[in-house]
Amino acid sequence: MTIRVYYEDTDALGVVYHTNYIKYIERARSESFFAAGRLPHSEEFSFVVRTLNTRFIKPARLADLLTVETTLREVGGASIWLDQVILRGGEAIFKAEVELAFVRNGKPARFTPEAKELLNQTLFRFR
Amino acid sequence: MTIRVYYEDTDALGVVYHTNYIKYIERARSESFFAAGRLPHSEEFSFVVRTLNTRFIKPARLADLLTVETTLREVGGASIWLDQVILRGGEAIFKAEVELAFVRNGKPARFTPEAKELLNQTLFRFR
Amino acid sequence: MTIRVYYEDTDALGVVYHTNYIKYIERARSESFFAAGRLPHSEEFSFVVRTLNTRFIKPARLADLLTVETTLREVGGASIWLDQVILRGGEAIFKAEVELAFVRNGKPARFTPEAKELLNQTLFRFR
Amino acid sequence: MTIRVYYEDTDALGVVYHTNYIKYIERARSESFFAAGRLPHSEEFSFVVRTLNTRFIKPARLADLLTVETTLREVGGASIWLDQVILRGGEAIFKAEVELAFVRNGKPARFTPEAKELLNQTLFRFR
Repeated sequence: MTIRVYYEDTDALGVVYHTNYIKYIERARSESFFAAGRLPHSEEFSFVVRTLNTRFIKPARLADLLTVETTLREVGGASIWLDQVILRGGEAIFKAEVELAFVRNGKPARFTPEAKELLNQTLFRFR
Repeated sequence: MTIRVYYEDTDALGVVYHTNYIKYIERARSESFFAAGRLPHSEEFSFVVRTLNTRFIKPARLADLLTVETTLREVGGASIWLDQVILRGGEAIFKAEVELAFVRNGKPARFTPEAKELLNQTLFRFR
Repeated sequence: MTIRVYYEDTDALGVVYHTNYIKYIERARSESFFAAGRLPHSEEFSFVVRTLNTRFIKPARLADLLTVETTLREVGGASIWLDQVILRGGEAIFKAEVELAFVRNGKPARFTPEAKELLNQTLFRFR
Repeated sequence: MTIRVYYEDTDALGVVYHTNYIKYIERARSESFFAAGRLPHSEEFSFVVRTLNTRFIKPARLADLLTVETTLREVGGASIWLDQVILRGGEAIFKAEVELAFVRNGKPARFTPEAKELLNQTLFRFR
């Protein structure tokens, strides 16, 4: 998955506005579902970001082509931890640890078998 | 209603990214509902932008304070037309004509009496 | 050029937030420059949206794949007019007329030979 | 500083899209400069987010009014650490630790006396 930096992503300092890197890694997670013809949520459940620890290493600029690498760090009973890195030409410019919590009927919940199966067919497979 | 221009609104050209002016005038429309303790949509209906004709006159910059003036131009049976202007220090920097269409159960529809009453208590009053 | 609809593009009404269609057509214009290894601006000049007339036909939704078609309508001495259409599966869901004005040293100006050459190698070629 | 949640901030899950909380705390930092008639950057320097550790506690929704509290945790020679909390009606819904690094002529650098004076008149005063 390649992400192009457009004007909308940049700010008056001439580089990508910091929150947009966090959008990029969300696109990568969602794309693993979309590419499999699935959505990451239903009427009943969703996966929400609970914790996000990030390190901004180098700025990206207009027209840059970026890629996102996603690695599964840990699978818990009610949340998972991912490592996500944004690369430009093989160089890491942003790193994040992301905790995704499972939410069912509006409340944090333990993964259902269906949720685990969905993760296996999407995020865990395409990372 | 005063709108401050933040980094997120600007782009690498050092001015406000063009679509953000269109966000600003939507904020002004929505604020007329929120300020009255109402929402511009329900389970059943919403108001959607059908037509938007805009003129970009002067760029806004980081830290600028902007205001939005909204004038009702025409009320039809199924949509309304508004004129919206963004001002900086009394000078118009952006102008738009906006057609808002009424949508009920997912389809364009004529205004219900409840919708007209809602508009009277909100957008038409606070414009 | 294919555009995927992500969560960031949608709003609480469950569809793409209206200004984002206007971002999508800007991406398409910029991509014609980036794909040719060029930028649409320099220290000296840029192309800015002066007029934008849009028609919102059908809503796009999360995970949709959209394409943008750009057609040159008219070339003036100091601005050009484009027709841009967003399609989903061959169906037009959004249409826009866009006037791009040439700006040189901060002021509207007639196209320089270099600007015309740049347009010929990028936007006019890849549309 | 009060932040209203608009449609642009929400996503198809009906709540504020996660990166927008991170925009809100940046607005609060910038506002402390703007309110004092200053900018957080010049031709020579800027403050950039180097580290951002966040905890998403409860979702915000359309029309919510939010406030941001900023506390200085630590002042180093080349960066500062802030604690920022987003509140809704007195309840914390989002927490972040932010490391802002000083950048001079494009490189990380130790604070100049002018930078310290600027921080004293803005971010440290209005927090």
